[in-house]
Amino acid sequence: MKLATVTMNNRTLIAALVDDGKLIDLEAAGQEKGTTAPVPKTMIEAIKQGDRFLAEAKEIVNWTLEQKKAEFVYAIDDKNVKVQAPIPRPAKNIMCAGKNYAEHAKEMGSEADIPTDPIIFTKSPTTVIANHDEINPHRDVTESLDYEGEIAVIIGKQGKNIKAEHANDHIYGYTLLNDVTARDVQKRHKQFFLGKSFDTFSPMGPAIVPKEELDGQHLSLRTYVNNDLRQETTTENMIFSIPQLIEIISRGMTLEPGDIIATGTPAGVGAGFNPPKFLQPGDKVVIEVDGIGQLQNTVAPD
Amino acid sequence: MKLATVTMNNRTLIAALVDDGKLIDLEAAGQEKGTTAPVPKTMIEAIKQGDRFLAEAKEIVNWTLEQKKAEFVYAIDDKNVKVQAPIPRPAKNIMCAGKNYAEHAKEMGSEADIPTDPIIFTKSPTTVIANHDEINPHRDVTESLDYEGEIAVIIGKQGKNIKAEHANDHIYGYTLLNDVTARDVQKRHKQFFLGKSFDTFSPMGPAIVPKEELDGQHLSLRTYVNNDLRQETTTENMIFSIPQLIEIISRGMTLEPGDIIATGTPAGVGAGFNPPKFLQPGDKVVIEVDGIGQLQNTVAPD
Repeated sequence: MKLATVTMNNRTLIAALVDDGKLIDLEAAGQEKGTTAPVPKTMIEAIKQGDRFLAEAKEIVNWTLEQKKAEFVYAIDDKNVKVQAPIPRPAKNIMCAGKNYAEHAKEMGSEADIPTDPIIFTKSPTTVIANHDEINPHRDVTESLDYEGEIAVIIGKQGKNIKAEHANDHIYGYTLLNDVTARDVQKRHKQFFLGKSFDTFSPMGPAIVPKEELDGQHLSLRTYVNNDLRQETTTENMIFSIPQLIEIISRGMTLEPGDIIATGTPAGVGAGFNPPKFLQPGDKVVIEVDGIGQLQNTVAPD
Repeated sequence: MKLATVTMNNRTLIAALVDDGKLIDLEAAGQEKGTTAPVPKTMIEAIKQGDRFLAEAKEIVNWTLEQKKAEFVYAIDDKNVKVQAPIPRPAKNIMCAGKNYAEHAKEMGSEADIPTDPIIFTKSPTTVIANHDEINPHRDVTESLDYEGEIAVIIGKQGKNIKAEHANDHIYGYTLLNDVTARDVQKRHKQFFLGKSFDTFSPMGPAIVPKEELDGQHLSLRTYVNNDLRQETTTENMIFSIPQLIEIISRGMTLEPGDIIATGTPAGVGAGFNPPKFLQPGDKVVIEVDGIGQLQNTVAPD
């Protein structure tokens, strides 16, 4: 079971996404079934409830399917359903690891660019868009629009100075994120924030996979642009593993439920080719991770 | 009239801070006076109401003072009153301009470090503390705790691709911010976010001065550590003026009411001295700007 934020008939709510592409309206189904507490209205609220909500959500799903309550079940491609980003409006900037795969560090410079300490920057919450939403090419302000396929970790439990061996306790789950980047702006301003923070620069989704259902350190990631395979790696190739990232990022800084950490992109971004293969209006970017799904976004026409 | 977020008798509310250090409980006074709409509960809500709330707040203040309604008036040093940061929990990271005064860029490196384009990084919203709150020295994770006295701009009106000549329309007001920094962590991780984002690293306040009451481009700033004058400048010395910063930051990125932009620190930070004068437990940092006030914070004992 995955968790999605969806809008159905003008209501935005938390839905369960089950294996065959069915979405279950947890709020409405939970109301009829009866739950110990109301189903939370937002993903951040759901995340704050931790295991309790996950257990309840599973019960609602089982009840809905067993009782054949078709009125609470929607096909993911139903025209009345819009799948939003799982956290449409994060409560702080998205944190991102830069150059966390050695081959990507080298394509952006040289062997000397492989970091000895994680490089962490942020993206504004106003960047977030959903699966299938269009990326704005912002051609008035950038000539080098690039993609970065990434796995994002969602924090589930507040903590500070978290040791790597306890990091898993603080993870809620995983989703996909395209760390869209204006390379010229990124370079011009030295600190990455501006070049990473244009509106629509964080396609995210399609859903959150709770950590119990996935092994974050053994995931295969592929990025396609117009069906051309550009990036392919496994998370075993990360320089800093997800537990190490959580340990280092939480040194002195409290992490909170709903925080998002994008874990870095592998080699194969547009800037890594000679000549570069930057994104153009109409290009379609697909990020695919087994067990999480596909995140697909097209660059809007001019 | 300035606006402060205060906690009085377990209620957190928006208060007006008037010239002689009196705080007026706008919510309670407004209720008795009668207002066209309820006084907003949070500063971000107040900011979203723009001029309408400012006008209403002024009427409430005048009524309270003219009618001598002492029950709504508190002294700022009243033991039952806690002045919070004006925006205790920003809705996204605080944006900050790095090296926006030439003399500071030089003390951190050389002439070559004077930026030709603004350097913009962010601080986590979990860093925010109030005037008089203690800065945690985090001695387990940094050996080079530093201060940076800054003027912060509060955005009042949503906008994207804002031209410098219209920037003033998007400003709500000004406050003070100490961009506390762990220099070793800032340097080690290349991107500034981690070294700037430890808990308690954004003392902010004491209040917001609406833009009508202040000329942001002609402000004198001084920073004292234990009464030793360390930083002194005027905002005329900024490399990128506040309108220019708003123009450049909003290129492609939507700014929202309640967004905070710290405008950079002048020369005189601890790292600029030889040997460096880093902060030690017990040190008191005072940032002072005529027309805004004083922001005072002490480094907590070990």
